[in-house]
Amino acid sequence: MKIIHSVNQMQRFSNEQKKKGKSIGFVPTMGYLHDGHLSLVRKCRKENDVCVLSVFVNPTQFGPNEDFQKYPRDKKHDEVFAKREKIDIIFYPTEKEMYPSGYLTCVTIGPIANLLCGKSRPEHFQGVATIVAKLINCVSPKVMYLGQKDAQQALIIKQMVRDLKYSTRIKTLPIIREKDGLALSSRNKYLKADERMQATCLYRSLKEARNLIRAGERGPSKIAKAMQKIILSNPSAKIDYIECVNANNLVPLKRLQGNILIVLAVFVGKTRLIDNITVNV
Amino acid sequence: MKIIHSVNQMQRFSNEQKKKGKSIGFVPTMGYLHDGHLSLVRKCRKENDVCVLSVFVNPTQFGPNEDFQKYPRDKKHDEVFAKREKIDIIFYPTEKEMYPSGYLTCVTIGPIANLLCGKSRPEHFQGVATIVAKLINCVSPKVMYLGQKDAQQALIIKQMVRDLKYSTRIKTLPIIREKDGLALSSRNKYLKADERMQATCLYRSLKEARNLIRAGERGPSKIAKAMQKIILSNPSAKIDYIECVNANNLVPLKRLQGNILIVLAVFVGKTRLIDNITVNV
Repeated sequence: MKIIHSVNQMQRFSNEQKKKGKSIGFVPTMGYLHDGHLSLVRKCRKENDVCVLSVFVNPTQFGPNEDFQKYPRDKKHDEVFAKREKIDIIFYPTEKEMYPSGYLTCVTIGPIANLLCGKSRPEHFQGVATIVAKLINCVSPKVMYLGQKDAQQALIIKQMVRDLKYSTRIKTLPIIREKDGLALSSRNKYLKADERMQATCLYRSLKEARNLIRAGERGPSKIAKAMQKIILSNPSAKIDYIECVNANNLVPLKRLQGNILIVLAVFVGKTRLIDNITVNV
Repeated sequence: MKIIHSVNQMQRFSNEQKKKGKSIGFVPTMGYLHDGHLSLVRKCRKENDVCVLSVFVNPTQFGPNEDFQKYPRDKKHDEVFAKREKIDIIFYPTEKEMYPSGYLTCVTIGPIANLLCGKSRPEHFQGVATIVAKLINCVSPKVMYLGQKDAQQALIIKQMVRDLKYSTRIKTLPIIREKDGLALSSRNKYLKADERMQATCLYRSLKEARNLIRAGERGPSKIAKAMQKIILSNPSAKIDYIECVNANNLVPLKRLQGNILIVLAVFVGKTRLIDNITVNV
């Protein structure tokens, strides 16, 4: 396993691989790797000649009052993880090179960046799209692997890649959960013991929603109410949003039909957690 | 010479060339090729194994009342030109593929896109940056060749390429002029005979500015006044802007020093022409 910090070196490596006809698979992360990342990495390893994992806590996707400073970092753990999984390259770009003084360019993605998480995190997806464009330009992957936990992010990156004519293919893999249903996230680390127990309410509410839809319920407000009830029975939980949207374009549904994405963001204590589930009717 | 319309085919061609270790040079144009393009194409031919020329009149860089519809097009002439110059590929992307219905992604470049031409053409440089990002993703050139006539455009594209970590290098080549000094531009075609004669006032005013600076003048407003006098002695000329700016960042200069770019946009009749000159003091 090789560790690369510089953009130049990363691009040289990718060019050499391409000349050899090797396919490059890419898993972009903010580090603090867990079993959610593991499923991406294993798929990437299986499907490509060369695997690149990037670790970069991207400052531009955090709002001014968010957790950029305290976002969990553990380089040693991440390197052990990557080595064990036979990753070829860990790419650690530097903030100085990704955002040198005087940078001016942003990648913006119209209305879908302003829905759901974009409402409470107004610059978030612009930050995501911009860093992912840069990372693709460094790594030139044939395939990039993303987690479905960040459903909106995955959709926005797919849109960007399609719109800007990148040749990279995007694969989105299912959410990995703890035994009690909590979706894996580096931010779970923030939860205190009692918050950790309460945090299972996100997935419980999603399962309840799915059951109701399968039982014939088609009204999104009824679904949201049932979910609220489950979530708000936890004293530390505060709902940011609950929505039933079209899974292809995130447009809120008036009547539940087709490929439905039920998405939510909930604060448990001070920790903002997201989760989602899809239902086809 | 091969003609390519589809993004997929263009990318496959570029990948094959890269596998063979060939360097790709790229000249992006809106067609209606003239001797300004010729200097780019010849440099590109000289410096690269493979030359790609794109022809695409990009709708998103035209304002609603601008000349997108009537912008001059001559496919046959362009193909004869490209063949004569031993271009390997003419890439004609289709509007349908570059801007399919439902596209949402834009590349925006902060304040320098709002200065000079950006003041009178507010969406122009966002359109330019976005299409150039797409074209780079299709062609993956090692070097891209741009004309200094569009000085602000060249600076903005350089900024974008640097910011988004494209590995493409940008080379900007000098303005090519008619014998009487008029900078070559596809839009010169719009000029009526008497306007064509008056249009020489742009370069005459720039030369006068350079002479004044070389003679010791350091006040930008004195320079602008001298230029205005030359330009406004032509009945069909109307000034959009005249500015003396820092050639590296387009910031207006209060005192003329360093690497100065004198830029102007002038309507001659209904035709908007731009030109510029650099002076080092």
